[in-house]
Amino acid sequence: VTAVAVIAGGVGAARFLAGLVEVVDPSGITAIVNVADDLELHGLSISPDLDTITYTLAGAIDPERGWGLAGETWAAMDELGSLGGPSWFSLGDRDLATHLYRTGRLRSGATLTEVTAELTAARSLRLTVLPATDDEWRTRVTVSTAAGEHSSDTTHQHTEEISFQEYFVGRRHAVPVRNVRFAGDPTPAPGVLEALEAAEVIVIAPSNPIVSIEPVLAIPGIREAVAARRDQVVAVSPIVAGAALKGPADRMLAELGHEPTVMGVARLYASFAATLVVDDADDALAPAVEALGVRCVVCPTVMHGPSEAATLARAVLEAAAVDPGRRR
Amino acid sequence: VTAVAVIAGGVGAARFLAGLVEVVDPSGITAIVNVADDLELHGLSISPDLDTITYTLAGAIDPERGWGLAGETWAAMDELGSLGGPSWFSLGDRDLATHLYRTGRLRSGATLTEVTAELTAARSLRLTVLPATDDEWRTRVTVSTAAGEHSSDTTHQHTEEISFQEYFVGRRHAVPVRNVRFAGDPTPAPGVLEALEAAEVIVIAPSNPIVSIEPVLAIPGIREAVAARRDQVVAVSPIVAGAALKGPADRMLAELGHEPTVMGVARLYASFAATLVVDDADDALAPAVEALGVRCVVCPTVMHGPSEAATLARAVLEAAAVDPGRRR
Repeated sequence: VTAVAVIAGGVGAARFLAGLVEVVDPSGITAIVNVADDLELHGLSISPDLDTITYTLAGAIDPERGWGLAGETWAAMDELGSLGGPSWFSLGDRDLATHLYRTGRLRSGATLTEVTAELTAARSLRLTVLPATDDEWRTRVTVSTAAGEHSSDTTHQHTEEISFQEYFVGRRHAVPVRNVRFAGDPTPAPGVLEALEAAEVIVIAPSNPIVSIEPVLAIPGIREAVAARRDQVVAVSPIVAGAALKGPADRMLAELGHEPTVMGVARLYASFAATLVVDDADDALAPAVEALGVRCVVCPTVMHGPSEAATLARAVLEAAAVDPGRRR
Repeated sequence: VTAVAVIAGGVGAARFLAGLVEVVDPSGITAIVNVADDLELHGLSISPDLDTITYTLAGAIDPERGWGLAGETWAAMDELGSLGGPSWFSLGDRDLATHLYRTGRLRSGATLTEVTAELTAARSLRLTVLPATDDEWRTRVTVSTAAGEHSSDTTHQHTEEISFQEYFVGRRHAVPVRNVRFAGDPTPAPGVLEALEAAEVIVIAPSNPIVSIEPVLAIPGIREAVAARRDQVVAVSPIVAGAALKGPADRMLAELGHEPTVMGVARLYASFAATLVVDDADDALAPAVEALGVRCVVCPTVMHGPSEAATLARAVLEAAAVDPGRRR
């Protein structure tokens, strides 16, 4: 296999890609990355998923936090806090350089695709990292809030629509989600549809189906391009034994009416992915997944480190190559 | 004296104000600060003169450099340089917090006046620091450049118009200046005209007459408001013995056809300042200054530290109070 496209969110996708570059020549890999949880803060353009992938593949990610740079310092944030500024979204001093670079280039007319290519080249990455779109495209989350202060009707359901990062970081994804939508009028970034057409294998990375994978697919043209290659599409379930390894994907699936298991993932992906890779822990659900018309491959999917990520990447590529009936 | 307005640039004005707050209750002092050398860089709104004054009065300025914060770190700049980003304009990690705060507030609709009040309050300053205008107002400098590469006519004069900071920092003010203009359509910020009207003394701080003082006066309404109070206006010459204590004021005066001495300063200021304070070193020029209809007060003006600044501030306030004929 020499041409692989990976539809990617943040941490889970980054870890998978770190394994994939060990088993496929990176020059044949294109990561198509969610940008719907990007934000503008302090005037800076921040792209968390692009940065998590770039930092991880550069070996520069902080391994404890899973985001930001290792060995980071926090002088700017500390000072901003003492000035009374908003410090709910932590930006390390060296991480700030990425946002300063990106923002300056965008303001001078560069596209996010161009800036991302420059930032990945600066960190000597050999794979292609593409934002899914160069256009503004933002996840909006409707969450439940406490009953209004002035309302005596405490049974009345109050909701509020907030940005993804307000939900995810600001409220530590601890509030119930009632709805998710994406705001904007985007087109796929240059190279995205071409990479999906040229790929021998398209991987749906183990990322949140609702807020990482769906906002990529929801860009007009991308879901159709992926579905047109359904037989070559292998998804990796981000849900293991009914729980997300990281983040609120399990709770979010349930809150939005999906089964928070590999079955829920299989139903969401069945129309465009012929194969679903699930963890050994979900072996018993494989027949039910296959009953949906989705080939189910069972193998270890939890990536504690690069070698497990490489093993998973190898299994995913093999899954794409196997006969429809076969599974481990 | 309880109400003093100071028209201010950067370092020289900041040092003078640090002396003034020692001799007048700070709550009666309004600094009206040049913003025409502000810049947008990396998407951030940077106001060098406002920050130099704020940091100096907070006792937080780096005493060696004369700009930025003491004890600063440079992780973001170092990283930006390694990413290939523009690092010609140095921004320390803690200094960045000021720009992040300002930019975020401006983007959310606050005025520069409001943001400046918040930033000075956060640093516990008791004087009022006002930007001269809340509007975009930018110094543009036409400089001489080397003859074009493809021109055989080496005697032909090539010029280029650049921003103030490109001239001042980017080219280290080492290129000849052919013209200075201010771009924009500004009105005085709220409180500026009121402070000039209410002041018992208006001080023109020892700042660059061309690129610090003039861009404040050139905002429609301000020069007239100052001139209307001419008898109460005391200017401090930034030129001592034919040289600027800091920066390119002397060379710039000469390049633009002004005498680079206290006489050149007196001619520029005569229409709106009844009194000019010059250094002991320029004692011999006092009669010539007075011949222009400008009262000349001679005293030490070089501020090596806060006590000298306080002494100068006291002399300036006394100069405003003396009879027209008297000088030391």
